[in-house]
Amino acid sequence: MMIEETRQQPDALARTLEEANPLCRFLASRRPRFIVLAARGTSDNAAQFGRYLIEITTGIPVSLAAPSVVTLYHSEIDFRDVLVVGVSQSGESTDTNAFLDDARHRGALTIGLTNEPSSAITRICDYVILARAGREKSVAATKTYTCQMLGMYLLACALNGRCGLDALARIPDCVAEVLTLESEVAALASNFAKITRALCVGRGLNFSNALEFGLKLMETCYVVAERFSAADLMHGPIAMVEQEFPVFAFAPPGVTWPSISDVLSRLRELKARVLVVTDTREAAQLGHSLFLPASPPGPAGLEDLYTPIPYIVPAQLFAAHLAAAKGLDPDQPRTLQKVTRTL
Amino acid sequence: MMIEETRQQPDALARTLEEANPLCRFLASRRPRFIVLAARGTSDNAAQFGRYLIEITTGIPVSLAAPSVVTLYHSEIDFRDVLVVGVSQSGESTDTNAFLDDARHRGALTIGLTNEPSSAITRICDYVILARAGREKSVAATKTYTCQMLGMYLLACALNGRCGLDALARIPDCVAEVLTLESEVAALASNFAKITRALCVGRGLNFSNALEFGLKLMETCYVVAERFSAADLMHGPIAMVEQEFPVFAFAPPGVTWPSISDVLSRLRELKARVLVVTDTREAAQLGHSLFLPASPPGPAGLEDLYTPIPYIVPAQLFAAHLAAAKGLDPDQPRTLQKVTRTL
Repeated sequence: MMIEETRQQPDALARTLEEANPLCRFLASRRPRFIVLAARGTSDNAAQFGRYLIEITTGIPVSLAAPSVVTLYHSEIDFRDVLVVGVSQSGESTDTNAFLDDARHRGALTIGLTNEPSSAITRICDYVILARAGREKSVAATKTYTCQMLGMYLLACALNGRCGLDALARIPDCVAEVLTLESEVAALASNFAKITRALCVGRGLNFSNALEFGLKLMETCYVVAERFSAADLMHGPIAMVEQEFPVFAFAPPGVTWPSISDVLSRLRELKARVLVVTDTREAAQLGHSLFLPASPPGPAGLEDLYTPIPYIVPAQLFAAHLAAAKGLDPDQPRTLQKVTRTL
Repeated sequence: MMIEETRQQPDALARTLEEANPLCRFLASRRPRFIVLAARGTSDNAAQFGRYLIEITTGIPVSLAAPSVVTLYHSEIDFRDVLVVGVSQSGESTDTNAFLDDARHRGALTIGLTNEPSSAITRICDYVILARAGREKSVAATKTYTCQMLGMYLLACALNGRCGLDALARIPDCVAEVLTLESEVAALASNFAKITRALCVGRGLNFSNALEFGLKLMETCYVVAERFSAADLMHGPIAMVEQEFPVFAFAPPGVTWPSISDVLSRLRELKARVLVVTDTREAAQLGHSLFLPASPPGPAGLEDLYTPIPYIVPAQLFAAHLAAAKGLDPDQPRTLQKVTRTL
């Protein structure tokens, strides 16, 4: 199911694009002073993407919620002029919903981004963005992650961000092209069948992909996968990298490249086992790489703007095939359930 | 040096308390609409603590900065009515300083929290809170982390948060008491000498301690240490925990206890090897534990308010002694330098 749902992404993304116009109308006269994104698990990784995307393209400060501040400590946060966006595949995440409910009562405008049109989140929020991924049966989320990311782009567009619907409309085809690399990805994954530890690295708009790739490796392959931004890695954790340590890096074109390139050079000196996901020749030449078809080009200074959705797809395929290579069933991770209820 | 500096914390904390009154005067007429905390590495863990503490005790929304949004993407963020606090031991962290400089030019009130009175950060910011830890020579930060945490308490007090200087004044003695447990901690650490992977868990006010303990294990012991809030752990990564998997958990009294207790029960079913840091009998009875002297009691609903500083001290000692048990020198981590310059 995980692989099947990964393959459904071009259609799921194309359907989700239909949310653009009504969202633009809803937000036309409402520019928030500040935005808070609330989520857990994979949805929180999509929120992490939104955090970078919205600040970068709109200049509105964004924060990721710490739900326990409200759900456990009952802090009375001043939410006036704040837009709170809850992200939940099922729409039934108890703490995300409790956070949204509290925020609305304290003055926030609230939006729910969910896959399920009749879920609890839709009854709590002022507005709903539907991730039109279709029912997700696999415990390991794939198509809902990319549709939630697309939801974040739509939000950035509706807030008059530097972000274009024309380019977004090309992403489904781009993902379809990436999916043609599946057999190459599967072969690569089988070379990593014995790993038990790994490191995932990204920066800026692709940092959330490092978080999400690592989460997939933990959930479906039981690999202890550390996730770091290129900058934070160099501030200490690089000490744990030894010869043959598996490292997965996202290396798009643009402003993050010098930082990622520094990390890749250092990892080469340490003789780590590096696999780079990229669509630039420069990064691909550095060693083992998954060379992707070109993403839609972003404007100057934002060359990596449209890379994050295409870049996570090979990582999803890699995790599913690595699980298979390890003799595991990615659809039945031990000790997990699809909807987690925590307060 | 790491152990020596860990032992200096009672004096360092007592000196840092002297910052309280001038900070209160500076902030008396300045209540920000929103707060952004910017930092890297251990300082970023102190900022993560501040994020919970300030939202919980003052109700002002807080965000952790993603510095690359400004330093690489050059986003023009609307910083009016925003207080930006940069945290840096050396005061020379290039991206934290670049973020502060940009924020000040865009309307933010800026505060630098640093150990070094004549560093670059002090020339950039409107106000400086000195962490009076004394020069930190060890690459692995210890006393600056707790002094930065204390700086966050002082900030919460100055913003009229539910946080008392009387209770804070008792923390240095409490830390001195915890330090008397060093030989017990060293003996426990030697039992873990062979670990290569671990999991650190906390929630709410002690979540940052899970981040910091894990960072110390990575930097000084080369242990691949995952760090999760109790809630996020249950959302997927728990799948990687198998029999004898080492888990370190912070279990204070108060509102996070039911959540931490659920995790500890699940870990017991999975037969993980759990070490609990706590000052409550209830948590200590669950298995291997480091039972600490009682922290100053917090008000109702905030029972864990003053636990985070005393709770990190045994973890610092544990990491230093684990490094020694592994035959490593915690003062000379491979591939690291004290001041990391990234943009």
